[in-house]
Amino acid sequence: MTTTSNPLTEMTAEIGFDSSGEVRPNESFRETTLPGFKQALTARRSIRVFDGDPVPEAVMQDCLRDAILAPSSSNLQPYELYWVRDPEKRAAVAVACLGQPAAMTAGDLVVIVARGDLWDVNRHKLLDAMTKHGTKPLTDALDDYYNRLVPWLRKTDALGVRNLMRRVLLAYRGRTEPMVRGPVNRGDHRVWAHTQSSLAAQTLMLSLSAHGYESCPIGGYDSVRIRRALDLPRPAEVTMVISAGRGKPEGLYGRRLRLPDGDLIKEV
Amino acid sequence: MTTTSNPLTEMTAEIGFDSSGEVRPNESFRETTLPGFKQALTARRSIRVFDGDPVPEAVMQDCLRDAILAPSSSNLQPYELYWVRDPEKRAAVAVACLGQPAAMTAGDLVVIVARGDLWDVNRHKLLDAMTKHGTKPLTDALDDYYNRLVPWLRKTDALGVRNLMRRVLLAYRGRTEPMVRGPVNRGDHRVWAHTQSSLAAQTLMLSLSAHGYESCPIGGYDSVRIRRALDLPRPAEVTMVISAGRGKPEGLYGRRLRLPDGDLIKEV
Repeated sequence: MTTTSNPLTEMTAEIGFDSSGEVRPNESFRETTLPGFKQALTARRSIRVFDGDPVPEAVMQDCLRDAILAPSSSNLQPYELYWVRDPEKRAAVAVACLGQPAAMTAGDLVVIVARGDLWDVNRHKLLDAMTKHGTKPLTDALDDYYNRLVPWLRKTDALGVRNLMRRVLLAYRGRTEPMVRGPVNRGDHRVWAHTQSSLAAQTLMLSLSAHGYESCPIGGYDSVRIRRALDLPRPAEVTMVISAGRGKPEGLYGRRLRLPDGDLIKEV
Repeated sequence: MTTTSNPLTEMTAEIGFDSSGEVRPNESFRETTLPGFKQALTARRSIRVFDGDPVPEAVMQDCLRDAILAPSSSNLQPYELYWVRDPEKRAAVAVACLGQPAAMTAGDLVVIVARGDLWDVNRHKLLDAMTKHGTKPLTDALDDYYNRLVPWLRKTDALGVRNLMRRVLLAYRGRTEPMVRGPVNRGDHRVWAHTQSSLAAQTLMLSLSAHGYESCPIGGYDSVRIRRALDLPRPAEVTMVISAGRGKPEGLYGRRLRLPDGDLIKEV
C-alpha cells in the first residue's frame, strides 16, 4: 500500500473491501485505473452465442462478489444472484429463456432476482453487523434511520393501506417542503427493488468483461418457469438473466449502436 | 491496434465504439484490464460530502458517454441522463434532494430519468440507424423484431386493454410452452424502463470512480420538484440522482458493509 497524505485515500484504504489496498485517489490512480475500466466497458458487448465451456469457477465467484459491491438504496441490497449450476435447473432456465442461443449455449447462467420483500430482514442484518458485531454504537441517527424511517417507507400490506397513508401524508407535506413522494403503490416498491438488482447486474457484466469473458443480459424469459425451476419464493421477481462464457464470433450480432449522445445526455 | 488471430477480437475491434482499438480478448487483456476495473470498482464508495468543485467538463462528458454504453433491453435505451448545470436548476434539484449534503455540496448533479414511453420513438431511430444510414438491410428478422414483436410487447393504452390482452394470451400460451409473462401491467412497464436506466446509472458511477471522482446515488428526493425544475414530460420518471465530485473525508460515513456473500449469491 502506497503512503499518501490524502486523508480520503487513507480512510478508503482503511475501509477497503479487498486486501490489495489499491484505492484512490492519488496521482497515479487515473493513469492505472481508467484504461482498464475503459477496456472492460468497451469490450462488453451482448454476445448471443457462446462456446459452451463454463467460466472458471474462481472467475465466476470473483465476478459475483464484484457484483455485490454495487451500491444499493439504504444499503439494503434487496436482491439475490442465482448462479445456476445444477444441470437440470440450468437446462430448465435456458429453456425458460425461450431456448434462445444466448442461454442455451452459455457457459454459465446467473438469474438476477429482485427481493424487495427482504428489506426488513436485511435491515436487521445490517444493524446487527454495524452495531453488535461491528464497531459502531447504535447512534440516534442510525436508530432513527433504520428503525423508524426505513420501516415507515417500506412497509406494505395486502390492502394498500400503508401505501395510501404515505401517499396522503407525503403529498400533503410536499406542498410546503421538499418531500419524497413514494413508495405509494405496488409498482413503486417493485421499481425500487429492480433498480438495486440492476446496479448489481451491470456490475456483474462489467466484471465478467474485465475478466475476459462475454455476457448477455436476457430480458426475454418465462418468469413462471424460472420461478419454478429455482423454487423462488412468491415475492421474488426476476430482473434479468445473465449468460456468461466465451463468445463465438457469430454471437456478435452487429456493430455497436447507440442513439446519438444528445438524445440520451441532456445538458440543462 | 494489435493484430490477433481471434476473430471475435477482430470483430469487436472493428465495431469498437471508441477509437482506441483496446478490445479483447487477447492474452494480455485480463492482465491490463482487471486491475484497473477492480480499482474503479472498489474505490467507488457512496460519498456524502464533496468539496463543491465541479468535475472537469471533459471528464463529466466522458463519464456520461461511458454510461450510455450500458446494454439495454432490445437496445431501446429508454432513459435520459440530465446533467444539471444551470445554477438555478441545480439549486432546485439539490433542494429537491431534501437538501442532503450529498446533493448540496456536489460538484455536479446528474438526474437519471427512465423514459419507458420513448420505446417507440427510439425503435424508429434504431431502425433508421441500422438500415437507412447503416450497413444492414432491413432483414425479415429485424423487421419482425422491431416492427412487430417490440410494439406488441410495449404498446399500452389508458384503459389497460393491451395489458389485459397480453396477460390473457401470454398466460394461455405459457401453459404449454415457455413464454414471456409481461409486460401486463403498469408496474411491469415502469420496472422495464428503470432497469435499463439503472444499468446506465451504475456505469456512470463506475466511470466517475475510474476517472478518480467520487459519487453518491441519491434515492431520497422529491420527484415532483425535480420534474418541475427540469421541466420533465409527464411520462418521465426519476430513477435516482447521482452526485459527483471530489469527496471530503467526512463524506465517507463508515466502513464498506455488505451482507454475507451467501445471503446474496445463491449457488443452485
